[in-house]
Amino acid sequence: MTKDDLKELLKQYKKGDLSENRIISLLSQPPIDELGFATLDRHRELRKGFPEVIYCEGKTAGQVAAIAAKIAGNKHRLLATRATPAHYRAVKKEIPDARYHQTARCITLESFPEPIRTGVVTIVTAGTSDIPVAEEALITLKCLGSPVQQVHDVGVAGLHRVLDKTDVLTNASVIIVVAGMEGALASVVGGLVDVPVIAVPTSVGYGASFHGLAALLAMLNSCAAGVTVVNIDNGFGAAFAAHTINKF
Amino acid sequence: MTKDDLKELLKQYKKGDLSENRIISLLSQPPIDELGFATLDRHRELRKGFPEVIYCEGKTAGQVAAIAAKIAGNKHRLLATRATPAHYRAVKKEIPDARYHQTARCITLESFPEPIRTGVVTIVTAGTSDIPVAEEALITLKCLGSPVQQVHDVGVAGLHRVLDKTDVLTNASVIIVVAGMEGALASVVGGLVDVPVIAVPTSVGYGASFHGLAALLAMLNSCAAGVTVVNIDNGFGAAFAAHTINKF
Amino acid sequence: MTKDDLKELLKQYKKGDLSENRIISLLSQPPIDELGFATLDRHRELRKGFPEVIYCEGKTAGQVAAIAAKIAGNKHRLLATRATPAHYRAVKKEIPDARYHQTARCITLESFPEPIRTGVVTIVTAGTSDIPVAEEALITLKCLGSPVQQVHDVGVAGLHRVLDKTDVLTNASVIIVVAGMEGALASVVGGLVDVPVIAVPTSVGYGASFHGLAALLAMLNSCAAGVTVVNIDNGFGAAFAAHTINKF
Amino acid sequence: MTKDDLKELLKQYKKGDLSENRIISLLSQPPIDELGFATLDRHRELRKGFPEVIYCEGKTAGQVAAIAAKIAGNKHRLLATRATPAHYRAVKKEIPDARYHQTARCITLESFPEPIRTGVVTIVTAGTSDIPVAEEALITLKCLGSPVQQVHDVGVAGLHRVLDKTDVLTNASVIIVVAGMEGALASVVGGLVDVPVIAVPTSVGYGASFHGLAALLAMLNSCAAGVTVVNIDNGFGAAFAAHTINKF
Amino acid sequence: MTKDDLKELLKQYKKGDLSENRIISLLSQPPIDELGFATLDRHRELRKGFPEVIYCEGKTAGQVAAIAAKIAGNKHRLLATRATPAHYRAVKKEIPDARYHQTARCITLESFPEPIRTGVVTIVTAGTSDIPVAEEALITLKCLGSPVQQVHDVGVAGLHRVLDKTDVLTNASVIIVVAGMEGALASVVGGLVDVPVIAVPTSVGYGASFHGLAALLAMLNSCAAGVTVVNIDNGFGAAFAAHTINKF
Amino acid sequence: MTKDDLKELLKQYKKGDLSENRIISLLSQPPIDELGFATLDRHRELRKGFPEVIYCEGKTAGQVAAIAAKIAGNKHRLLATRATPAHYRAVKKEIPDARYHQTARCITLESFPEPIRTGVVTIVTAGTSDIPVAEEALITLKCLGSPVQQVHDVGVAGLHRVLDKTDVLTNASVIIVVAGMEGALASVVGGLVDVPVIAVPTSVGYGASFHGLAALLAMLNSCAAGVTVVNIDNGFGAAFAAHTINKF
Amino acid sequence: MTKDDLKELLKQYKKGDLSENRIISLLSQPPIDELGFATLDRHRELRKGFPEVIYCEGKTAGQVAAIAAKIAGNKHRLLATRATPAHYRAVKKEIPDARYHQTARCITLESFPEPIRTGVVTIVTAGTSDIPVAEEALITLKCLGSPVQQVHDVGVAGLHRVLDKTDVLTNASVIIVVAGMEGALASVVGGLVDVPVIAVPTSVGYGASFHGLAALLAMLNSCAAGVTVVNIDNGFGAAFAAHTINKF
Amino acid sequence: MTKDDLKELLKQYKKGDLSENRIISLLSQPPIDELGFATLDRHRELRKGFPEVIYCEGKTAGQVAAIAAKIAGNKHRLLATRATPAHYRAVKKEIPDARYHQTARCITLESFPEPIRTGVVTIVTAGTSDIPVAEEALITLKCLGSPVQQVHDVGVAGLHRVLDKTDVLTNASVIIVVAGMEGALASVVGGLVDVPVIAVPTSVGYGASFHGLAALLAMLNSCAAGVTVVNIDNGFGAAFAAHTINKF
Repeated sequence: MTKDDLKELLKQYKKGDLSENRIISLLSQPPIDELGFATLDRHRELRKGFPEVIYCEGKTAGQVAAIAAKIAGNKHRLLATRATPAHYRAVKKEIPDARYHQTARCITLESFPEPIRTGVVTIVTAGTSDIPVAEEALITLKCLGSPVQQVHDVGVAGLHRVLDKTDVLTNASVIIVVAGMEGALASVVGGLVDVPVIAVPTSVGYGASFHGLAALLAMLNSCAAGVTVVNIDNGFGAAFAAHTINKF
Repeated sequence: MTKDDLKELLKQYKKGDLSENRIISLLSQPPIDELGFATLDRHRELRKGFPEVIYCEGKTAGQVAAIAAKIAGNKHRLLATRATPAHYRAVKKEIPDARYHQTARCITLESFPEPIRTGVVTIVTAGTSDIPVAEEALITLKCLGSPVQQVHDVGVAGLHRVLDKTDVLTNASVIIVVAGMEGALASVVGGLVDVPVIAVPTSVGYGASFHGLAALLAMLNSCAAGVTVVNIDNGFGAAFAAHTINKF
Repeated sequence: MTKDDLKELLKQYKKGDLSENRIISLLSQPPIDELGFATLDRHRELRKGFPEVIYCEGKTAGQVAAIAAKIAGNKHRLLATRATPAHYRAVKKEIPDARYHQTARCITLESFPEPIRTGVVTIVTAGTSDIPVAEEALITLKCLGSPVQQVHDVGVAGLHRVLDKTDVLTNASVIIVVAGMEGALASVVGGLVDVPVIAVPTSVGYGASFHGLAALLAMLNSCAAGVTVVNIDNGFGAAFAAHTINKF
Repeated sequence: MTKDDLKELLKQYKKGDLSENRIISLLSQPPIDELGFATLDRHRELRKGFPEVIYCEGKTAGQVAAIAAKIAGNKHRLLATRATPAHYRAVKKEIPDARYHQTARCITLESFPEPIRTGVVTIVTAGTSDIPVAEEALITLKCLGSPVQQVHDVGVAGLHRVLDKTDVLTNASVIIVVAGMEGALASVVGGLVDVPVIAVPTSVGYGASFHGLAALLAMLNSCAAGVTVVNIDNGFGAAFAAHTINKF
Repeated sequence: MTKDDLKELLKQYKKGDLSENRIISLLSQPPIDELGFATLDRHRELRKGFPEVIYCEGKTAGQVAAIAAKIAGNKHRLLATRATPAHYRAVKKEIPDARYHQTARCITLESFPEPIRTGVVTIVTAGTSDIPVAEEALITLKCLGSPVQQVHDVGVAGLHRVLDKTDVLTNASVIIVVAGMEGALASVVGGLVDVPVIAVPTSVGYGASFHGLAALLAMLNSCAAGVTVVNIDNGFGAAFAAHTINKF
Repeated sequence: MTKDDLKELLKQYKKGDLSENRIISLLSQPPIDELGFATLDRHRELRKGFPEVIYCEGKTAGQVAAIAAKIAGNKHRLLATRATPAHYRAVKKEIPDARYHQTARCITLESFPEPIRTGVVTIVTAGTSDIPVAEEALITLKCLGSPVQQVHDVGVAGLHRVLDKTDVLTNASVIIVVAGMEGALASVVGGLVDVPVIAVPTSVGYGASFHGLAALLAMLNSCAAGVTVVNIDNGFGAAFAAHTINKF
Repeated sequence: MTKDDLKELLKQYKKGDLSENRIISLLSQPPIDELGFATLDRHRELRKGFPEVIYCEGKTAGQVAAIAAKIAGNKHRLLATRATPAHYRAVKKEIPDARYHQTARCITLESFPEPIRTGVVTIVTAGTSDIPVAEEALITLKCLGSPVQQVHDVGVAGLHRVLDKTDVLTNASVIIVVAGMEGALASVVGGLVDVPVIAVPTSVGYGASFHGLAALLAMLNSCAAGVTVVNIDNGFGAAFAAHTINKF
Repeated sequence: MTKDDLKELLKQYKKGDLSENRIISLLSQPPIDELGFATLDRHRELRKGFPEVIYCEGKTAGQVAAIAAKIAGNKHRLLATRATPAHYRAVKKEIPDARYHQTARCITLESFPEPIRTGVVTIVTAGTSDIPVAEEALITLKCLGSPVQQVHDVGVAGLHRVLDKTDVLTNASVIIVVAGMEGALASVVGGLVDVPVIAVPTSVGYGASFHGLAALLAMLNSCAAGVTVVNIDNGFGAAFAAHTINKF
């Protein structure tokens, strides 16, 4: 149920198109869909502005497809992350206009909604190897309805690359910095702008990156004030936070 | 040897159906079965209430099958965890009514015993991806003889889902909380009920879950008094502890 | 508010000694006490069987004293853990019959309540250096109302010491094993008995104990089924869990 | 130099009150103050909206005092974090109206500026022991000019405490959640609201919190979408990020 | 070159069968064989009592075969550890009587030498899953020339299994304890005997064993005096140390 | 753009072969090549003495080929590290004289440039299993233009092997020590010579090497003054640093 | 009870100096001394060759003194490790001829027993800062009755220092290598000799030694076959193991 | 013994001022000074270009003073690091012109030698709190004889500060970057210059810097080619390496 759905119900009730008994019945249903292996939170959109997102890792293709079908049946927007082609094939059977974004490993519907924000979220990557994580953020932002622009491969080893983009950065509403290895780009960008910077460490790097730990710790210790951090490779989480900030 | 076996022997001896020499001979056998690669503990059931459980990881299919055949030959209940289909195929040859539980990765006999407890153990998962671990607990509890009920996918991101289940939770005799990511469900459930809560961290999550370390540490640090913790993904261990508690 | 308080209110209301308005007013007060720096949970006892316990680390002496005074004023049982002598002196001013347990670092009232359980909780330590943690568990169990017995310094280096205590162990309702270093005592005890075993790793040990990490990991990996674990040095948590189990 | 300073210069130049030579000379000074042991960034406020903040750990009292005097001499707002009383005494000699906030360990000027934002930042703590970190955030927000409100000690062990505050939370512009131990409060708050949530793990907790690591990992793995995280005990960083977000 | 080779040379020289020039030439050759990708230490046996052992991981099949051929050509005993079947096939081409020990992943010659020690090394495993590591130790000891006996699957969950073996243990010259999970068997055995105990942690176990870290730390922290430890899964190292001790 | 290119332009301009407009146009192009998924730093060679090196991990074959084509098109030297055969096949289509170094996992052009340094960089490995990392360093040094020599398999278990090479070591201009396991060779070499020693830990070793962590920590803690360290398995980084040092 | 005590009793019984009843009574006493806070293992010497050693950390001065008095009363040899001067003062009151070894932090009786071994244990330190740990080993060996010699400060940065001592090393019966930082000395010594080498990592070193972790991991990963390892700074454990080995 | 000493001896021998017997006797003395608790390496300077440096941590004041006296008696240059005032007072008694550098915690002789290099080593710090580590490097370089210049507090949060210093950086012979927190300055500097960059992580920072681990990992993962790393807070090691490089 979205805020608009709720407004509509109340309006109908006020106009008399909906009886008191009926609206009470509708509103007092427990706001969940029980699937046995899943308990869908129907009020997620009401509370958080977006319905449940399906995290596919550890779920069978059948489970993902059933959850997706229920979300789509509720007329909610669909986003499934960390999806394999097998997950997608199962979903596609239930929802013919589902679409697979290979690099981002996401499933969405064929077309994205119109942006509902005016601010632009800028996604910046340190290197080409960080792009899959950036793509997960990109798809998430498009689903949520935030305008996005991307700047790729501007890591600090060639500092002029990011300095050349200062305009793009300062005009953003929110910046997402995606970087592996030592993650220094987050601090450099954080020192150049006064907009919120969300840092995403990636698992890109030689042995002592320890699958992203090095970048994660570096970003948490950023000397640039105001940088916040999400989980390693978590493009989705960064995008969701960015959209939440972009709202205001 | 079970407590009932022992009682039976002593009764027969008292009645004179068993000579002194014979019972001494029976009781003074070392309580083990030597298989060369394994030393079966025949008194495990006497001491712990359940015979040895076969942990299959690192064992060959042949070893698992031979141990299972010996346990079955001792008329003991059979439970093998972390079993692959290859383990199962070898066991099946020795014990035709062996059964494979794919999600739980367990081998048991075809039918479970009648429950020997009256209390109900409730297994609660934070997300659908945690179900395989919950299934290992489920099969274990059924083998041991505890009634079980399950509540799936009620993680704290949609808090009303678990609050709606407060009745089910407070009526449980013991609660097992299975959760990956940040494992917060253990603390929330632990704060709502006065029954024992056993927390099982799972390896579900993005990079900085470090294969379940994040949930493990969170559960060990639970601010809700009385939560105890078992190993990552250890559904079996949680179930065994829950059954032990359920006894009283 | 305890369950008894609630029963009393309802009884008075039924008898007519309490008006409908009055009982509604009493029951609809938000079940908290706001102290500015603390939000006391007045329903903790109703839900969990024991009022809020004060964790003193990181709190000023003044804060602890004010919270303790409020708990005592609510006629709730008092337990403050990790208390320094300075915390105690401040509490003592507010609550003259408060008492300090130096080894356990706990503050309680002068006298403990009568036991409300029949089962006995047995606390077992591996070494004399683990006693302070065992004492925290002891005081907690006495406050909660569980009978307790202690067995000290029976670590596995001299195995006959714990084997000599098998009777004491098997007759316990719940066992708390407190051990530092390699924490092997938890597995040995867990292999001998069919009662619930709660393991408390302690920070006792040479360098590579890493302040209790070695014992913590060992206990989580116990090969004895049914051992559950609490935080390092967390005697309070083990005791609370033991009392919860002891109830059934 | 602030944006207002820059506007003023350009306006004077336009009006002819400032010669071309003079304004070029003023603008082409390198935007730093060299103190030998420190290189003050005079454009920090121009770029980031706030002048350099002094991180006192590892600096001598004399160094902090000299930097503070330079910042004050530039008519910039003063904020020094992690200050000891010795740092304060040295600053006080240079800047008589400097003020020490003991719990927050911050030095500011006597009076805070008027708020320059309309949105309110809400700081929520899980426990009383988390207050010193919350205070660092509080002082920082007051310096920066964001309205603040605080809710203390509403950890998930007594869930109704935070549920009672749902109104306060949903009306906030940004929420800072400060929690040690398992840090579950961040996920619970993150699941209830659609405003940005910044989580600050604290070093409060028993042994296996490993000085805040448990809460840090838990918060990074939050199942509630949109939670971002800062360094352990870093109230300043959370506040700076919150103010940056609050701007929009 | 072995000590016997050296003695033989000197004897021949004394007898006059070897000219001064010739023996000087033989003794002043650098004691290495250069293979380009390897520098064989021809004096390893002279110094350490055994020639170089080939650690196959990270080496190509061709490299292993060439080194093995050189060792065999020097009439040295052959031992290659961590060998895959591919390594073996390449060695077999060079050395037809090479033999592959699948469980131990070792390559040796067809027949082992006669034992050169009188003491017996006893290898004890906690579980059947630890056998591959024990086999690496077994093959190594046979190559080196120590008599060996094995006791399998006597972990502490069924303590009588190891107590039944006390005789076997106390009669050993050296004991190697191989255990995963919590590794408690090392402490229990270490407390029972006054012979040297070498503990080998294995990577067997659930998640929080962290690939053997739990057992490693436990063994390093053993409360039983005199236990020493080798690397995780390092059956070879334990066996080599045991043989060295067995010598005296 | 190389320093030589820049000199050439300026010379042509001075001679009048290049108009002022033309040289300004050439010099004011932003020094990057935008490929969408990559932002090539054209001034890398000007600043660092070598053009961008392609780190292939995490990049698609198509991305690597396109970047390589652009670098080759700029007449820059080509070096791609961590390349798979698939990466190579894609590059080969764009650049027919590209060459694949299988052990080193590098792509270069068919022929290396003439050495531009006089000093020799000596690469020393502790074992044959360390050779792949040494090869990455070797190829890098050849690309950069430093003379190289190699000494393999001289780990400290047979100390005379490295002592025999003292001459080779002391005559080197820079030494790269490549070692896994306990990495002791770095300290031993560091104690013998007064030339710069760069240590590369490798991921070779048994369990508690933790994928190179043991060697990394050992090398960072070297008691031999003047040893510096690069990332685990980072042969490229060591070679680049060595060439930079070799310049002087 | 020592083996000699037991022999004496049996001899007296055979001669008739001890009645059957009396010897049965003496032998059937549980072999422990219960002190309330400690359970002394009277058979420790019978099983392990040495009575219980008192680990003082975490024990009060009173507890240590009472245990020491009991051990002395049993006519057992006294060794207390990790003792503070306060521990010593309390022991001194009970046992006037107790003696404190300040560097080793050990308490023993005034005079050491005659050596009961013929082999010599050689203790080698890498640096002067490792001496306190070496001293703990020295005192332990003297208590146990092994001849000892020491070689100090021969770390690998000046390799000739340890090479000069090759004679001393090869003539030892067992070698204990005590080293912090990168702990390379253990591998170098292990490569030179064919006697057992026990490595003790120490917590000496700069930041990334992580309190001895670097040396510990290095020693566990030693490329020299046959090195075994004890806990960080555990001179006592190394000495005990060395004496056990020295026996044969 | 320095190279000059050796040359002098040989020259005197050639001239006949030194008999053959005498020079052989002088040269065949073992190149160590035995102090019992220390084995001074007299050839350290011959091999490494600088005599032994005293690392004071873990040494008593008396030990440091005795070693210093011996070094001074050998007419070697004196450098003691990590020295406390107590160490200094003891040294001062032996060597009246010893001098204490409080911030650097170093002891040297009163006057430094003339520089023996022409290149300049530039030390760059990210923040004022990093200065003590930089000072250790500064003192070491002065002792060794390298010209030094320093640039303080130019961390990446205000990027223009370091960009303003590009000239100073590119003119350096070697650069030492000292930085805590996320250590990004090493990558930024490494990307700007083609001279060798040695990175020193410091333990400066909030909780998740984990005493310098964050900066250490970041620096090891630097995306700027050619950066090498030394131990946390190890200013001495960086300086020694820099001087070694500076030689060429």
